[in-house]
Amino acid sequence: MSLGEPYNQFDPELIQRRKMMRKQLQEINQIDDNEERNQRFMALLGDAGDDFFVESDFKFDYGFNIHIGDHFYGNYDLTLLDTCPITIGDHCYFGPDVGLYTPVHPLDAEQRNADVEMGAPITIGNSCWFGGRVTVLPGVTLGDEVVVGAGSVVTKSFPDKVVIAGNPARVIKEL
Amino acid sequence: MSLGEPYNQFDPELIQRRKMMRKQLQEINQIDDNEERNQRFMALLGDAGDDFFVESDFKFDYGFNIHIGDHFYGNYDLTLLDTCPITIGDHCYFGPDVGLYTPVHPLDAEQRNADVEMGAPITIGNSCWFGGRVTVLPGVTLGDEVVVGAGSVVTKSFPDKVVIAGNPARVIKEL
Amino acid sequence: MSLGEPYNQFDPELIQRRKMMRKQLQEINQIDDNEERNQRFMALLGDAGDDFFVESDFKFDYGFNIHIGDHFYGNYDLTLLDTCPITIGDHCYFGPDVGLYTPVHPLDAEQRNADVEMGAPITIGNSCWFGGRVTVLPGVTLGDEVVVGAGSVVTKSFPDKVVIAGNPARVIKEL
Repeated sequence: MSLGEPYNQFDPELIQRRKMMRKQLQEINQIDDNEERNQRFMALLGDAGDDFFVESDFKFDYGFNIHIGDHFYGNYDLTLLDTCPITIGDHCYFGPDVGLYTPVHPLDAEQRNADVEMGAPITIGNSCWFGGRVTVLPGVTLGDEVVVGAGSVVTKSFPDKVVIAGNPARVIKEL
Repeated sequence: MSLGEPYNQFDPELIQRRKMMRKQLQEINQIDDNEERNQRFMALLGDAGDDFFVESDFKFDYGFNIHIGDHFYGNYDLTLLDTCPITIGDHCYFGPDVGLYTPVHPLDAEQRNADVEMGAPITIGNSCWFGGRVTVLPGVTLGDEVVVGAGSVVTKSFPDKVVIAGNPARVIKEL
Repeated sequence: MSLGEPYNQFDPELIQRRKMMRKQLQEINQIDDNEERNQRFMALLGDAGDDFFVESDFKFDYGFNIHIGDHFYGNYDLTLLDTCPITIGDHCYFGPDVGLYTPVHPLDAEQRNADVEMGAPITIGNSCWFGGRVTVLPGVTLGDEVVVGAGSVVTKSFPDKVVIAGNPARVIKEL
């Protein structure tokens, strides 16, 4: 699954893992104490660096595929669908309601109806800032110091030091 | 209301129904057991077929106007505003944070301020796949085997076997 | 902060205020009784007029910067990031999942990494209707009787009596 190979999204073991994770997240998202809540989140992730701070409700499917650098801040309602690795560099700030989605379904309805799912990793560089309600699609890589305007849908990769915005997101400024 | 005729959105009976439904959904959305949670959701809907699976938090206003076929999967935070009928075929998969909204408000501010609301039904065919954060507007009909890209805003109807994406959504590929 | 001057977003006093507010909102958002819930919300806001009605989950950071006129209705999941004043006129209706975001981060990564944040106020006129999933950016002013299509991202100001839609939102009809 993590390598992007096809798998069955309703495999009982995967459903069980997602259920266990959802149960833990539901409890952790209720914790008011910022330090305690974030320590508990971090324990479920593949890696998370220093000064990790995410507001409630933080949602993901598995956790082990999530790798986040130092000084991360994620505002309300961050959703990471982590079928494949999601890697975020140091000093990244995300506004509220950001979604990074790695799962991919076949365009062929017959394969889709057989519950085949795949995925592609998402990689975000260092010192990126995402405005609120940004959506990032499977397979996207962003460079360092990329600013993503609120409400953008990022469908392809972009290099370092650009401001991107829109649906689909396009470069609106070089930095 | 269900027929698209004007009604008062703050009618006490409608407010009371929405309140009762919200109370039940708040409780059901806390249930970890997938089978139990989904059985409870199904009991509130007009129709729901076999293999119905929706993640939390699932939100809707009334329930009786929602008709969903077999093998439905809805990821996190599905919101259905079901003033008018919402009909979804068999084998449909929705990503996280999808919203189907049937209510319509008058463009005339004076009528709006008198709390007049209307609606128009939404109909989704069989074997459709919606990426995450898709928004569907009142009156939209989608055919069979339609793929909707993540972050799309679907403002009009589309026929069978197309991939649509963008805001407003446009055909980007014929299947 | 409220005047748009640079400040440190991780200032301990601000973190503490946001934490206290989040704790109260988490509790209030569970209240089924519409009158009790809305009285409790109103007590946390700078100003709120008669007939104030917001569904759960309503989220904001501070509250004192939020000024809302009479007859306001906000559907599910309204998020107001109120670093700077958010002023909403009379008779405004918002669909589900609307976000008004006043915080601004510097485009320069070095300043951002030093946790500098600023903001710009958002002002909405009277008798406006926002469809679902509308995003409004810092500094935007909308006139009276403005209709904003579902899924729009409002990046700049617009005058009275227009229908706007898209990402970025543009005038699609004069009223």
